[in-house]
Amino acid sequence: MHGQKMHGSADFADIATAVLARIRERAPRVHCITNTVAQQYTANILLAAGAVPSMTLSPREIGAFVAGADALLVNLGTFDAERRSAVEAALSVAAANGKPWLLDPVFIERSPARAEFARGLLGRKPVVVRLNQAEFAALSNNDPSGDAPARLAKSHGAIVALTGRVDIVADGARRVTIANGDPLMGQVTAMGCAGSALVCAALAVERDPWLATIAALTAFGVAGEVAARGADGPGSFAVGIIDALHSLDNAILRAHVKVHNDG
Amino acid sequence: MHGQKMHGSADFADIATAVLARIRERAPRVHCITNTVAQQYTANILLAAGAVPSMTLSPREIGAFVAGADALLVNLGTFDAERRSAVEAALSVAAANGKPWLLDPVFIERSPARAEFARGLLGRKPVVVRLNQAEFAALSNNDPSGDAPARLAKSHGAIVALTGRVDIVADGARRVTIANGDPLMGQVTAMGCAGSALVCAALAVERDPWLATIAALTAFGVAGEVAARGADGPGSFAVGIIDALHSLDNAILRAHVKVHNDG
Amino acid sequence: MHGQKMHGSADFADIATAVLARIRERAPRVHCITNTVAQQYTANILLAAGAVPSMTLSPREIGAFVAGADALLVNLGTFDAERRSAVEAALSVAAANGKPWLLDPVFIERSPARAEFARGLLGRKPVVVRLNQAEFAALSNNDPSGDAPARLAKSHGAIVALTGRVDIVADGARRVTIANGDPLMGQVTAMGCAGSALVCAALAVERDPWLATIAALTAFGVAGEVAARGADGPGSFAVGIIDALHSLDNAILRAHVKVHNDG
Repeated sequence: MHGQKMHGSADFADIATAVLARIRERAPRVHCITNTVAQQYTANILLAAGAVPSMTLSPREIGAFVAGADALLVNLGTFDAERRSAVEAALSVAAANGKPWLLDPVFIERSPARAEFARGLLGRKPVVVRLNQAEFAALSNNDPSGDAPARLAKSHGAIVALTGRVDIVADGARRVTIANGDPLMGQVTAMGCAGSALVCAALAVERDPWLATIAALTAFGVAGEVAARGADGPGSFAVGIIDALHSLDNAILRAHVKVHNDG
Repeated sequence: MHGQKMHGSADFADIATAVLARIRERAPRVHCITNTVAQQYTANILLAAGAVPSMTLSPREIGAFVAGADALLVNLGTFDAERRSAVEAALSVAAANGKPWLLDPVFIERSPARAEFARGLLGRKPVVVRLNQAEFAALSNNDPSGDAPARLAKSHGAIVALTGRVDIVADGARRVTIANGDPLMGQVTAMGCAGSALVCAALAVERDPWLATIAALTAFGVAGEVAARGADGPGSFAVGIIDALHSLDNAILRAHVKVHNDG
Repeated sequence: MHGQKMHGSADFADIATAVLARIRERAPRVHCITNTVAQQYTANILLAAGAVPSMTLSPREIGAFVAGADALLVNLGTFDAERRSAVEAALSVAAANGKPWLLDPVFIERSPARAEFARGLLGRKPVVVRLNQAEFAALSNNDPSGDAPARLAKSHGAIVALTGRVDIVADGARRVTIANGDPLMGQVTAMGCAGSALVCAALAVERDPWLATIAALTAFGVAGEVAARGADGPGSFAVGIIDALHSLDNAILRAHVKVHNDG
């Protein structure tokens, strides 16, 4: 245990409630370097949660935006020269100003150039890396062992959030699983990207990135379950999860949360 | 009065009805230089109103698009080198062809470079400047006086539309307030950007830009109120305002309009 | 006849059902070079159908993405230098790897530069060209004759899908009309672009491009009719067609299909 407190599922619901309340109260600014497909949906998820998104990539402007932001998202989708420069500029300002940032290495299994860039970013101290199974395999050089997320986390001093049917969150010492969410989340574009942005909003208001990451992913998964109940398919589901996130409260979180300490 | 007719709220409902009818009938083309986050939602608001959006920024193409358009939107969100060049090319063609254009100086309070660019554009004769309180403060150098909108309008020969809980529309001589809309409009990305685009559609069919601006903002605010009644949160609200705008009629406008002459 | 089997409407419903089933089962990858306005909606239509979209334009990456994809979409909306280079790179890889591709020459009637580029692409062997009446007029030099689609198809060895109130699909020898769809499809941005992407998904799983094209356009039109019944306007319609496409089945297709052999 090393002095770490163990949390039960209800505790995690309360933590998620508190983090959401702080996002709604403080309206943290999240600057997003994200792909062209995800920008609108990501902005709407952040706004529904109570955060304020910005998205410029311009080298003339991005420094000022990141300096004024509370957290930074670096998503590698549709990764072009403009985005590469934007990441460089943004990470310098983030490091100089102590802003937390999250790496979302979208589709790196499809492009060797993108995978190489992502590996380089791991050395730039992301607080969290959020990715899916295929992306994780590419980043960990297909390490097949069950504690591969912990190893990746430990070697880079980051929290690894490996999302899927069940999300795994690991740092070098701890591991939780989050069994919330709905399969429809995989049939809406930018859903994972938006989840990463929500983690950024949580990092902006919760100094413990471990709790921030679990809180955001739990809230997002529960919102997905609430939305799935009222959805007729992925179209109405994508709308409904925004509504559900906007009105998520402790009672709903407690009724749905499925977070377990796993090591 | 200076020969200007004073309008009451019901008059403004009738003017908005007439402007919407002309947009639906004539399907004016609105060319939009707008930010990457706002493009889809802006296009859908214009289409729902009956207008035809186009969005290219390419220097090879934008001249032909603006020459064939009926109004031009210049929105400074996600403002990069491509957009700077596009604005130059578009404004030259707009000036040469007498096309009305609107300036929406998004987030200029966050970026000195963007604010400077916006100040330069004020000299290029926008017909309307639409912006929120923080943007207005940046553009007016924090002029705190109540008649700051009128002063900005007068010094640039433009109509200033300062939107918020209550919208203020001012030219050098007149001022109205529009108390329509709903707080959910602030929780959907690109809502203000889309409102600016709707003003452009109105400018394309109504030669008096004062009436066009008030008509479009009133219609948009009333559509927001109608949508809010049926919404479960910002997701369904964003969808509902498109539906509401599409079917807005004189009875609904008369029942909701809250426009007041204010000076 | 020339040995070709004639299909009735019910046959086309069965073919569309089979093509949709294969998309859902195989999850084909469709790489999309498409306009900035259409990217999100196109991705969501592909995901709802069961396909996997990707959208990068980066010269470093697009080759790997196209090589790993099952079909390629080339949509000329918001056509800029980045997209021009992306098309060159993508078509080389597609040709070398035998990947089917579709040309969607958006708004070429508005820009001579874009129209010229589109004419050049006709020589690069698109399997299908999907376009509306105004775009067709620009591409066919305003050929007014009823068999202009067949002539364009024959001279380029492509299938021409001319969509509108009634869609016309022609190759050099055959012609069918599809009378499905709803007028609301014209009031949502990127609807035609998304339809083109759905044809790409069908090309990826059905080797006969004639059947693939008809199947995809029929399914899309029927989904539009189902969505229109439950819609309050273009906002809810845009959401509903995603849901409808996701759950489209043989019974619904058979009840709605209006495909006719027409020469």
